[in-house]
Amino acid sequence: MNIGIVGLGLIGGSLGLDLRSQGHHISGVSRKQETCQRAIERGAVDDASTSLSLMERAEVVFICTPLGVMRSTVAALIPHLAPETVLTDVGSVKGWVVEEIAPLWANFVGGHPMAGTAESGIEAALPNLFVNAPYVLTPIASTPARATQLVEEIVRPLQVQIYHCQPEEHDRAVAWISHLPVMVSASLIAACLGESSPAVLEMAKSLASSGFRDTSRVGGGNPELGMMMATYNRSALVRSLHAYREILNQFIHWIEQENWVALEQALQHTRQARPAFTDQGSPCQSGQASSFSQP
Amino acid sequence: MNIGIVGLGLIGGSLGLDLRSQGHHISGVSRKQETCQRAIERGAVDDASTSLSLMERAEVVFICTPLGVMRSTVAALIPHLAPETVLTDVGSVKGWVVEEIAPLWANFVGGHPMAGTAESGIEAALPNLFVNAPYVLTPIASTPARATQLVEEIVRPLQVQIYHCQPEEHDRAVAWISHLPVMVSASLIAACLGESSPAVLEMAKSLASSGFRDTSRVGGGNPELGMMMATYNRSALVRSLHAYREILNQFIHWIEQENWVALEQALQHTRQARPAFTDQGSPCQSGQASSFSQP
Repeated sequence: MNIGIVGLGLIGGSLGLDLRSQGHHISGVSRKQETCQRAIERGAVDDASTSLSLMERAEVVFICTPLGVMRSTVAALIPHLAPETVLTDVGSVKGWVVEEIAPLWANFVGGHPMAGTAESGIEAALPNLFVNAPYVLTPIASTPARATQLVEEIVRPLQVQIYHCQPEEHDRAVAWISHLPVMVSASLIAACLGESSPAVLEMAKSLASSGFRDTSRVGGGNPELGMMMATYNRSALVRSLHAYREILNQFIHWIEQENWVALEQALQHTRQARPAFTDQGSPCQSGQASSFSQP
Repeated sequence: MNIGIVGLGLIGGSLGLDLRSQGHHISGVSRKQETCQRAIERGAVDDASTSLSLMERAEVVFICTPLGVMRSTVAALIPHLAPETVLTDVGSVKGWVVEEIAPLWANFVGGHPMAGTAESGIEAALPNLFVNAPYVLTPIASTPARATQLVEEIVRPLQVQIYHCQPEEHDRAVAWISHLPVMVSASLIAACLGESSPAVLEMAKSLASSGFRDTSRVGGGNPELGMMMATYNRSALVRSLHAYREILNQFIHWIEQENWVALEQALQHTRQARPAFTDQGSPCQSGQASSFSQP
């Protein structure tokens, strides 16, 4: 199949590597000629250009740009597309994207392959990046079934775990497990830095070990990611933050009141509940590549 | 040297293994005969007994019991000790311990070797558990310098990073980097579980990956540890929780108000600040085994 990829970074480049190895013909577009050249050299694309006109013969186009330029990219792309071309994206927020793009192009289905590394750019692209990763598709009522099926057929051979859900459900779910943790974790680092005694702060830095390292990791990550989450998934994130603050207040209250029974019950509950989010046996890891939470 | 260890669990047993390999004669006391037997078999002690009278010839005794029985253990131990015997403990809270034990025994110095695994008990004991780990000593004004020096001389060959500080400073520091993260992390799990839509909760569980796994790890750990922190380090923990809630409120406010400049500055600050807590180059990891934050 002729597949287009607009945006040749970590995700676009990795998709290109895998889809080419599946026998597809991949055309790539990047703003920079240098990136086009490297994408060809790395085998991520068959041909590449800085001009969107390269997408004219594509049957499916993956939009892999940052969220901030996605709408303008699609608007500029449309004049080059045949009407039956299917568009999909890889953005990590879906409500906003679907709201912006679906009105522009009928054959659009939102997507979110949930894989990545700490790196970015074409040099960071990796083969098999998506193996066992969730790949969420968010068709809405107006999305042609054929568009969704086509994207599924293309990505399923990458050994992803395909899920379907509403864009808003996706955004609420990722607010809990991806966007809220960043703010919770960043607040932890910021709170420690507020310690008024330099000696205690120095001691805290010296004594910090794996517990602090893990809890603070995503809060000490790339600020651009946190900004993207807050900007494009603001309402779901705020909702999660409010719920989190309520729970935190409960914990504080129990400790202040020395309500050890309630605190112990809560800690037992969180210990019991966590494996459902993290175990290898959870749906996203168990090889149910063709399962759907909402077919 | 004749060294006694009361409490033959992970820490007591691991200390025994290392101190015996340094040529010391180690006598161990456990409540259970079976544990005594296993400690001998594993090479953690030279002799062991369920009776504290075995401590009569010890020059230094390490109290390695849980915090909850530490005071009663020391009270029962005292009749068996020569007056010049040095007592030290390995409890992870120091203000409460020093307050309880120092009045009972003049030659007492509080200690906290900051190493461990997720396991407990004599079977979990490991040689070299303390290599590169911080070992905090918390002498107070009334602590004889000789007692502190003696404990230092014994533990330094285990390649620990020795720190001195006031018990209250220790407790404030570990509240930030160890006890607060547990409550922050447990609150994250509990908040997610409060999601009202079963479909969204199911999706969140399926999509959770390394970010959620790391941020939720210590909040999904052994409830006994969390209870110990809250019970014995309550005031420092509450103080940290209040400061954390203030910062969290700031983050929420910025996101609600779309104050992206402030949010981005905060996220850049946390990214820049985190390495001082986690880098291998921090004092606790850099091989300064004889350094003191407060000599």
